[in-house]
Amino acid sequence: MSLPRPARSVTTANEISPRTGVAFPLRRGHVLKVIDPFGVQVSDLLAYNAHDVREAISNGRTFDYEETIALTAGSRLWSNRSNPMLTIAEDTVGRHDFLLTPCSEATFRHFYPEHPVHRGCFGNLAEALAPYGIEPDMIPCAFNLFMNVPVAPDGTLQVAPPISKPGDYIRLRAEMDLVIGLTACSAYASNGGSFKPIHYAIETDSPA
Amino acid sequence: MSLPRPARSVTTANEISPRTGVAFPLRRGHVLKVIDPFGVQVSDLLAYNAHDVREAISNGRTFDYEETIALTAGSRLWSNRSNPMLTIAEDTVGRHDFLLTPCSEATFRHFYPEHPVHRGCFGNLAEALAPYGIEPDMIPCAFNLFMNVPVAPDGTLQVAPPISKPGDYIRLRAEMDLVIGLTACSAYASNGGSFKPIHYAIETDSPA
Repeated sequence: MSLPRPARSVTTANEISPRTGVAFPLRRGHVLKVIDPFGVQVSDLLAYNAHDVREAISNGRTFDYEETIALTAGSRLWSNRSNPMLTIAEDTVGRHDFLLTPCSEATFRHFYPEHPVHRGCFGNLAEALAPYGIEPDMIPCAFNLFMNVPVAPDGTLQVAPPISKPGDYIRLRAEMDLVIGLTACSAYASNGGSFKPIHYAIETDSPA
Repeated sequence: MSLPRPARSVTTANEISPRTGVAFPLRRGHVLKVIDPFGVQVSDLLAYNAHDVREAISNGRTFDYEETIALTAGSRLWSNRSNPMLTIAEDTVGRHDFLLTPCSEATFRHFYPEHPVHRGCFGNLAEALAPYGIEPDMIPCAFNLFMNVPVAPDGTLQVAPPISKPGDYIRLRAEMDLVIGLTACSAYASNGGSFKPIHYAIETDSPA
């Protein structure tokens, strides 16, 4: 597949190859910028307290304190111990998901029986986070960047293609020392059937 | 406070006193009936695999597989390992919440600064589940029975009084051997400002 060049320079960013994931430390005060270089791609984000990885990002605590499921610039992402972990400093998309769990072997069997099974974002995150002492059962719901999951008035969910355009990004400021897990999503529905990379950069001195 | 008698017999049920919680085993095939004896009260439900408590109820996996946030009769509640844990066999209310985490000391300080701090459903669950080797950090989002959390079209959440009437109930069939945590909710908003007991019974031979 020949992909167009991204619409804006991301030459200083790291690349997460299609259907893979990474983990890395992010220090308090530093900013993680996650870029969708070609558009219409999803990136699952996990965060753990670097000094005690039993403290992890929590969709329920976040929904509680932010009083919304629609998280964007100004929103904070909270831990299971009720501490702010990340603040969304900038967001050119405005549409993310925090309801669904990372795609996995089991979700591939369930939703894509006609396709080969893939370990998915869950397997990619589990491998990337293992060196930090994080076991698979310690993986909660991810904050799914750029993922587009409309909730109908009757409560039903739909996984629709992201509205992100090439070069769109989100910037998140760390409120504590963190271990971050980050993927280029492996599932068919979440990115409109195409697998693309994700780019990210860590800004160590930028005003958030 | 003088409370009316429940509208229907619950004499065979166990009582959870106001602002407390319990934990107990529930065997595969048995049915847990949770009753709101006086109406307009919430009960936080947790479930763990009795043979490996690292497998726990997951709102994200449930939303994934059920494709809705509105869970009622016929819905299954799934674990973080993508296994069905409970099936809702009967539900006279039809309105529950799986978005929010159990109230805790931190949520009391945040939402009710004018009231005394209470350890909340979280503290009650942590104490009740400790004998089963379940630590506080292993408490995920609970399935909040009878809790009424409308989601507006813009994504904002509201905690409204439950629509449950005296004697309303939900029945859940265990799909594996479980450890259950269950509360009579301690928070002001979730039950319209009144603290009431919750009743429950385990049906060991009933057709679900």
